Amino acid sequence: MSQPGPDAPSQPLRITVLTDGDTRPPGLERIEAEADVVLAHDEASLRKALPGSQVLLVTDFRTAALEAAWDAADSLAWIHAASAGVDQLMFDALVESDIPVTNAQGIFDRNIAEYVLGMILAFAKDTKQNVRYQQDRRWVHRDTETIEHKQALVVGAGSIGRRIGTLCRAVGMDVVGVARREKPGDETFSAIHAQSDLDTLLPAADYVIIAAPLTDDTQGLFDAGRFKAMSPHARLINIGRGPIVVTDDLVAALDAGEIAGAALDVFETEPLPADHALWGYDNVLISAHMAGDFVGWRDALIEQFAANLARWQRGETLFNPVSKRFGYAPSSQ
Amino acid sequence: MSQPGPDAPSQPLRITVLTDGDTRPPGLERIEAEADVVLAHDEASLRKALPGSQVLLVTDFRTAALEAAWDAADSLAWIHAASAGVDQLMFDALVESDIPVTNAQGIFDRNIAEYVLGMILAFAKDTKQNVRYQQDRRWVHRDTETIEHKQALVVGAGSIGRRIGTLCRAVGMDVVGVARREKPGDETFSAIHAQSDLDTLLPAADYVIIAAPLTDDTQGLFDAGRFKAMSPHARLINIGRGPIVVTDDLVAALDAGEIAGAALDVFETEPLPADHALWGYDNVLISAHMAGDFVGWRDALIEQFAANLARWQRGETLFNPVSKRFGYAPSSQ
Repeated sequence: MSQPGPDAPSQPLRITVLTDGDTRPPGLERIEAEADVVLAHDEASLRKALPGSQVLLVTDFRTAALEAAWDAADSLAWIHAASAGVDQLMFDALVESDIPVTNAQGIFDRNIAEYVLGMILAFAKDTKQNVRYQQDRRWVHRDTETIEHKQALVVGAGSIGRRIGTLCRAVGMDVVGVARREKPGDETFSAIHAQSDLDTLLPAADYVIIAAPLTDDTQGLFDAGRFKAMSPHARLINIGRGPIVVTDDLVAALDAGEIAGAALDVFETEPLPADHALWGYDNVLISAHMAGDFVGWRDALIEQFAANLARWQRGETLFNPVSKRFGYAPSSQ
Repeated sequence: MSQPGPDAPSQPLRITVLTDGDTRPPGLERIEAEADVVLAHDEASLRKALPGSQVLLVTDFRTAALEAAWDAADSLAWIHAASAGVDQLMFDALVESDIPVTNAQGIFDRNIAEYVLGMILAFAKDTKQNVRYQQDRRWVHRDTETIEHKQALVVGAGSIGRRIGTLCRAVGMDVVGVARREKPGDETFSAIHAQSDLDTLLPAADYVIIAAPLTDDTQGLFDAGRFKAMSPHARLINIGRGPIVVTDDLVAALDAGEIAGAALDVFETEPLPADHALWGYDNVLISAHMAGDFVGWRDALIEQFAANLARWQRGETLFNPVSKRFGYAPSSQ
């Protein structure tokens, strides 16, 4: 199972691509020129595809199929996740194996940061209410908030969190970071605090931005206690993973006015069910797990995989290795 | 009429405040401690108030009352407009008089720049459509645009235009300026072109931002020809004055798909009538002439007037003098 491709040049390279089944990832042609490419989209098709595959490309970040079909992986030497989050791949058998995992670090950073800034400005300028007044053809003047010197608390200081921090600082906000461990402040964050200090940091934040990976440490991190610690004028923005937030506690906090609003791109259940309470809040902005998905992102993901594949074929160190201990690719900074 | 206050210390200072009649400007108390303050809100009340007033504070930027009651201004030595735009004060009799006019330059800059950036991000991230899908409880993934290296063409390089340019550049956009006359590029604008070159600049712009004062040179500047010159994927953002845009031509350009959308905070007729076509466009974002109005703006305006009043009483040079020749206060830069 750990036999690397470069040691077996006579064996044709076989790559399994695990997709969501709805779409064939565009740009696969360039991979097909290099290898036999087999598509799979669920446990059954994956069981057929895996035997003999040295490389697995996972484009469906929600998949549970790999864990279910794991025993069929007889030749895997490298797994690349074409996503920032790798939480679905961090099951025991893979974590304990010596198969390296890489991810799509960097690809989504800029667009996610723009999305977050857009949501901050939508709250400050009351954009959603403007849309509603426009629908009613009503001219209603209000005073709006500025974001200058407002504090953005970015939970997660990886490459996405850093990019968010950089953009928020560029527009004059105060930016504080939260990471697994405390680190010295730098050009992006005035300070980076340990996640264990979160409760002492929350009261001062105007915008609390979740940019953390989903791990044992972050699952359910934002629960009732955390919302009570937040300022009643603060907004929560989640572009990380849905299960970092206890959704029922968020709904209760909104009902109680413990926070002023939320912009949510990720949810515990995706798609968010049509009958879910969150759709109905005036002070909640919902998008369909698309914050990172700029026009051309699928091509960019394949291009990134192809570059790493070339390195793998030459026996070179892979880009964006995921720490299987921590469940994410450490930021280069 | 040109007798300045400082030369007549024995005469009690009398200040007329021309408001929109709906609200008493907050913070007037601090002025009342210094002078007899008389409120007016239309031609009739202004005619009663003006005689004997050395100073006129205009808080209603839409007023036509001053021109109508001008012959009653027997003692005016200074007019301060508590607004960025002074277009309603640039009637011949005032322009030809030697009465200095000052304005509220600087107060609204930051909030307007934030509003513009918010609208740019709302277009790029399709925020209005997200709100509509949320209302319908529909989960619809789309790819969105980035704003990095997109070009913002800022028409008007005064203090508001400069602040918009600074903020757009800070988030990685390319920023080009348009002013009355060509000027060298600087830290904000990669280049500042003459308004006469506008048609050659429009095709390359992703966002065309009107931040100009309403003058003879800018009235009706954005007409059918200008919209035809714009890229079909470009958006227009108007935070200047409504009459800089020929509204009927804008509606026609939207119908023809000549431009991709518009964010409008100002209109030829304000409030925008409920039956106006503009309310109904999916790709138009409307707000009620509020882009500059941050929480606390009324207090900030009175504070700025009070500071200028103190200078006037000491016979010092006034802040923010308006060029009556050009109809705006030249940016300090």
